Amino acid sequence: MIKIAILGAGNVATHLYKQFTKSNAVVVQQWYNRTFDAIKSFQNETEVIDDLSQLKEADVYILAVSDDAVASLSQILPFENRFVVHTSGSVNIHDLDKKNTRGVFYPLQTFSSEADVDFNNVPVCIESESKGKLALLKSLGEALGSKIYKINTEQRQTLHLSAVFVNNFSNQLYRIAHEISDAKSINFEILKPLIQETARKIEDMSPYMAQTGPAKRNDKKTIKRHLKQLESDEHKAIYQLMTDSIKRTHGIVERKRTKPKN
Amino acid sequence: MIKIAILGAGNVATHLYKQFTKSNAVVVQQWYNRTFDAIKSFQNETEVIDDLSQLKEADVYILAVSDDAVASLSQILPFENRFVVHTSGSVNIHDLDKKNTRGVFYPLQTFSSEADVDFNNVPVCIESESKGKLALLKSLGEALGSKIYKINTEQRQTLHLSAVFVNNFSNQLYRIAHEISDAKSINFEILKPLIQETARKIEDMSPYMAQTGPAKRNDKKTIKRHLKQLESDEHKAIYQLMTDSIKRTHGIVERKRTKPKN
Ligand SMILES: NC(=O)c1ccc[n+]([C@@H]2O[C@H](COP(=O)([O-])OP(=O)(O)OC[C@H]3O[C@@H](n4cnc5c(N)ncnc54)[C@H](OP(=O)(O)O)[C@@H]3O)[C@@H](O)[C@H]2O)c1
Ligand SMILES: NC(=O)c1ccc[n+]([C@@H]2O[C@H](COP(=O)([O-])OP(=O)(O)OC[C@H]3O[C@@H](n4cnc5c(N)ncnc54)[C@H](OP(=O)(O)O)[C@@H]3O)[C@@H](O)[C@H]2O)c1
Repeated sequence: MIKIAILGAGNVATHLYKQFTKSNAVVVQQWYNRTFDAIKSFQNETEVIDDLSQLKEADVYILAVSDDAVASLSQILPFENRFVVHTSGSVNIHDLDKKNTRGVFYPLQTFSSEADVDFNNVPVCIESESKGKLALLKSLGEALGSKIYKINTEQRQTLHLSAVFVNNFSNQLYRIAHEISDAKSINFEILKPLIQETARKIEDMSPYMAQTGPAKRNDKKTIKRHLKQLESDEHKAIYQLMTDSIKRTHGIVERKRTKPKN
Repeated sequence: MIKIAILGAGNVATHLYKQFTKSNAVVVQQWYNRTFDAIKSFQNETEVIDDLSQLKEADVYILAVSDDAVASLSQILPFENRFVVHTSGSVNIHDLDKKNTRGVFYPLQTFSSEADVDFNNVPVCIESESKGKLALLKSLGEALGSKIYKINTEQRQTLHLSAVFVNNFSNQLYRIAHEISDAKSINFEILKPLIQETARKIEDMSPYMAQTGPAKRNDKKTIKRHLKQLESDEHKAIYQLMTDSIKRTHGIVERKRTKPKN
């Protein structure tokens, strides 16, 4: 039985708490948050505290707090030589205070407070400065039902950056499509199956192989008409840049007409 | 029983043929393609032809040929006053020759030759210059198991443009994430659950509400570090433009420091 303490009570901390309590391999011994109100309602299930000095010995302390708070919170922990991990995609493992053994337990998924999380679909990226502790983190991840990947800090930061492209930026493309179609009184529902299928497709083939459309075909007539259709300069710029990017990926080189020199 | 003829033997024509033959409400009377080889293997199931003059009377002729071929093929059809539709997202209904009654039957989905198509997930956008024929197109779509939407040419062209954003451009973002992570020896599999969840999320909430991440939070430190991490100028430009777009959508206005005038 792995004894853990969770620190923080935001999206990640709460989803981790709920999932760990379902596991027989892990016990959440204590749950700390600086603001007691956020965890008070769980006091019948576990020991909830807002005072760090009450933290008992545990196999691992999971700091699921805001990125900016990881370093400072790790410094004021009133113990040393124990195992402390954070859950951030971007914070360096060495930002944790070195008085404790340091690790990372980064769930690569988008969490929001309302929606339930299926941890089968949450890859967990683990890192530890002590090789011996990796097995512990692996067991923790397995207790959640997650797939585990051993990843170093540079790789984790690259994953975090990649996640911005596939999550935040894709979502913004959906938003732009929503704006464009709303402006012509088109029901955004019509586009949802295509959005799902676009994501689904790359389960079976690489994004490179999955590409289609006017940029990939170098269909200049359609590209020109699309650019004309777009009313916002920002949308035009995104269309142009993404089109150029697809062309470059697929080796479509435009020959520039060079003016004959005088 | 609706009697139809399919013209063309590409991705769309072939998927339509296969799905229509499963329906009791529709019979594919003839299948035409200029290249006989592409349809020859179906000669035991239906009448396959490569000669337009052999086309018999049908309730509707579906021209599922390349966008550029729609107008010319419609002109050389050896009959008039019948009902002819194309399947394109971008071709104007009036590009069809006016000797026949014109319509559009546009399946808004990405088709490729290998993968099976679930027509429950293919919204079909219909248009007709004859109001009376809309019911026929509706029945055709329902025979496929699709959802039907009545859409005019301008709306259809806007949908086609929106589809480029959510399909081609999102897929290119996946590709970029693939490139970035490959460069650090990261298994692209780790990102796939996030890609699926990003698409799934907008089934329940608008893309506006679903947005998260450094741009939405105006987290300048992370944005700056991400831009530094990116090695390609093209990727930097996309990161910057998409970040600016998210900020504008969410009303995050940067105050420019203006130099005091002398
Ligand atoms: N959300 C995601 O999708 C996601 C995914 C993967 C990883 N992560 C990472 O997980 C960590 C937590 O993210 P989150 O989304 O759960 O954050 P969140 O919902 O914003 O919650 C932040 C938590 O940190 C606490 N906190 C903030 N500053 C603190 C300080 N100075 N001292 C002590 N506690 C402090 C807050 O306490 P109060 O309640 O007192 O304000 C709150 O409990 C971050 O490192 C994040 O990068 C997030
Ligand atoms: N693919 C999609 O995801 C998708 C989705 C929605 C709508 N559409 C639309 O559906 C239509 C067909 O697309 P597709 O993807 O099925 O195309 P495709 O796979 O490239 O097939 C094109 C077909 O058009 C025929 N064709 C080309 N030029 C012709 C000409 N001058 N005269 C007669 N036939 C000609 C070809 O005949 P040969 O076999 O002789 O070359 C082939 O059968 C297009 O309007 C497209 O915009 C496509």
